[in-house]
Amino acid sequence: MVKSFHPPNRILMGPGPSDVSPRVLAAMARPTIGHLDPMFVEMMDEMKAMLQYAFQTKNELTMPVSAPGSAGMETCFVNLLEPGDKAIVCQNGVFGGRMKENVERCGATAVMVMDDWGTAVDPNKVEDALKANPDAKLLAFVHAETSTGAQSDAQTLTYLAHKYDALSLVDSVTGLGGVPLKVDEWEIDAIYSGSQKCLSCTPGLSPISFSDRAMQVVKSRKTKVQSWFLDLNLVTAYWGSGAKRTYHHTAPVNALYGLHEALVMLQEEGLENSWARHKQHHLELKAGLEAWGLKFVVKEEHRLPQLNSVYIPEGVDDVTVRSALLHDYGLEIGAGLGAMAGKIWRIGLMGHACNERNVNICLTALEDVMRA
Amino acid sequence: MVKSFHPPNRILMGPGPSDVSPRVLAAMARPTIGHLDPMFVEMMDEMKAMLQYAFQTKNELTMPVSAPGSAGMETCFVNLLEPGDKAIVCQNGVFGGRMKENVERCGATAVMVMDDWGTAVDPNKVEDALKANPDAKLLAFVHAETSTGAQSDAQTLTYLAHKYDALSLVDSVTGLGGVPLKVDEWEIDAIYSGSQKCLSCTPGLSPISFSDRAMQVVKSRKTKVQSWFLDLNLVTAYWGSGAKRTYHHTAPVNALYGLHEALVMLQEEGLENSWARHKQHHLELKAGLEAWGLKFVVKEEHRLPQLNSVYIPEGVDDVTVRSALLHDYGLEIGAGLGAMAGKIWRIGLMGHACNERNVNICLTALEDVMRA
Repeated sequence: MVKSFHPPNRILMGPGPSDVSPRVLAAMARPTIGHLDPMFVEMMDEMKAMLQYAFQTKNELTMPVSAPGSAGMETCFVNLLEPGDKAIVCQNGVFGGRMKENVERCGATAVMVMDDWGTAVDPNKVEDALKANPDAKLLAFVHAETSTGAQSDAQTLTYLAHKYDALSLVDSVTGLGGVPLKVDEWEIDAIYSGSQKCLSCTPGLSPISFSDRAMQVVKSRKTKVQSWFLDLNLVTAYWGSGAKRTYHHTAPVNALYGLHEALVMLQEEGLENSWARHKQHHLELKAGLEAWGLKFVVKEEHRLPQLNSVYIPEGVDDVTVRSALLHDYGLEIGAGLGAMAGKIWRIGLMGHACNERNVNICLTALEDVMRA
Repeated sequence: MVKSFHPPNRILMGPGPSDVSPRVLAAMARPTIGHLDPMFVEMMDEMKAMLQYAFQTKNELTMPVSAPGSAGMETCFVNLLEPGDKAIVCQNGVFGGRMKENVERCGATAVMVMDDWGTAVDPNKVEDALKANPDAKLLAFVHAETSTGAQSDAQTLTYLAHKYDALSLVDSVTGLGGVPLKVDEWEIDAIYSGSQKCLSCTPGLSPISFSDRAMQVVKSRKTKVQSWFLDLNLVTAYWGSGAKRTYHHTAPVNALYGLHEALVMLQEEGLENSWARHKQHHLELKAGLEAWGLKFVVKEEHRLPQLNSVYIPEGVDDVTVRSALLHDYGLEIGAGLGAMAGKIWRIGLMGHACNERNVNICLTALEDVMRA
């Protein structure tokens, strides 16, 4: 007989999930109600307003996809692309590669703009690609690369997309709530994020926002969206405005309670204060890491404060250190992905986990474990 | 400023979500740990074993999809079908229609076998369709139609599929845990369910199981699965066997705690006891409803005990009654879908909500409200 599962207490300073606030956990344990209950529909409206605040947008189509960030990415691609379309995809880490997979699985062509892992997307290369491909329907790029901690200039890249009459499609899974992100001011057309990073909610939901311009493209498609589950023409019957909501799929009710509470907390703190907090504790962590000579993967001007990638020092074994941190301190930090596996650590300072106590614990624990 | 959301206490006797056990809610509020944490990976193995028990299968590919039942349905279709394939789809309610949408969005052709809403799928019609379409790759049908409460004979239909060399693809979203379902004995090839019905977990996860025969088809595809998120060739790197798990997407950690606890409870009760409990309380509810002359939509031999569809009596207004039940008793029952909207109610007795107290409350409340 299998027994109930009692997870250990961890300190989550990897690339996400990050520590979840007890308030969010408590919200998730509240009694389940129906996904068409009038009280639930009111909560959905509040959530939409709070997501609009988090994304800094008035976009009507602003909602959480009922699945993790990878499904949010897929929602953006399958709704905007049709077979035969062309998309320019910037790759400077793992997630640009995943975007390429998405484009190709839509029957579209991906024109790749490659930059080294750990660097920001180069706007000059992007402009060259846009110039060379005037038939490109969209430009897709990662604002906050979770695999490296590099931040790209979403405003400039979106400006370039529009200059060449393409839509901009932005991954800000790790960005939302942690660094400035202004969907309306920057005129981003489609964006997706995740619940488990700087929003400090549990993993499993993917907030998205589509501009009216993007929604026009979705509504005037020649072919049906290849995913029934992610088809925004259908999902909006449930997440649309007004009191009338029609069943599409059964929403993950309790997970949405959690995201609602996380967004209430973001409102209470204030978005600008949240950005400032991430920056402040990043500077504290950076000072400590650099004091021992650890080197950051990303140049200072492109560094995400919420995801600190550092090279593992010579002679130090990745797995040994991370296992000891987990075992001795209950502390999780992230490994490198892909080509960076075994070469870097990714130290997250996201949402609820981004505080002075965690900076201190992380620095002390790392020092202790590396000395061993 | 939006305040924290405090849902009312409801009694959920609709078509799902059903009442969630306090044990499951408490499990969901436990601290989040990483989706690659060794403790979490152990929990995943336990969950797989318990899902194998619930499905009565030894299928290695038995796992929860990280999204609701509609995504479980899509997982089955997009992995098994390729463009140009043909599928026979049985429709006797809403969900057969959704299957057709899935088939067509895979670039495949759906041959429909239509039966009246509220009846079971007719095996004779299915055999005719299989005979007439020897090139059909699979037969898809709904074991437990959530829109009507009709149960079809999954064993016979699967036998017929195999007789004509087709795979069987089964929707048992509402069936799992509530009525006998024996994946190995009946030789079902691909099946999906939902967390929020007779398992009494919160909505948001979709348990699936694929036979080795079905997985051979997935592994030997000529084209890539059109959904990156649902591609089982990739997902199995995370949900596969052994200690080595590779990141695919970030699993919904706390939702999985909840499903784990729900499955522990199913084990404690015993699957056969759970089936018997659903039958017993169905008979109690049926006796009460029939005593007032209410008529069931589905013939007795095809009736799902966990979903009781009855015609709304002449002169009784659907919305008035359901609103009064919700307002005066905190009781949710389900409306009709599609052509049955306004004509039937769907009274669920699923999982934790399937008990004598709820039968009594429902009968008393309905009588009171209808008299008003």
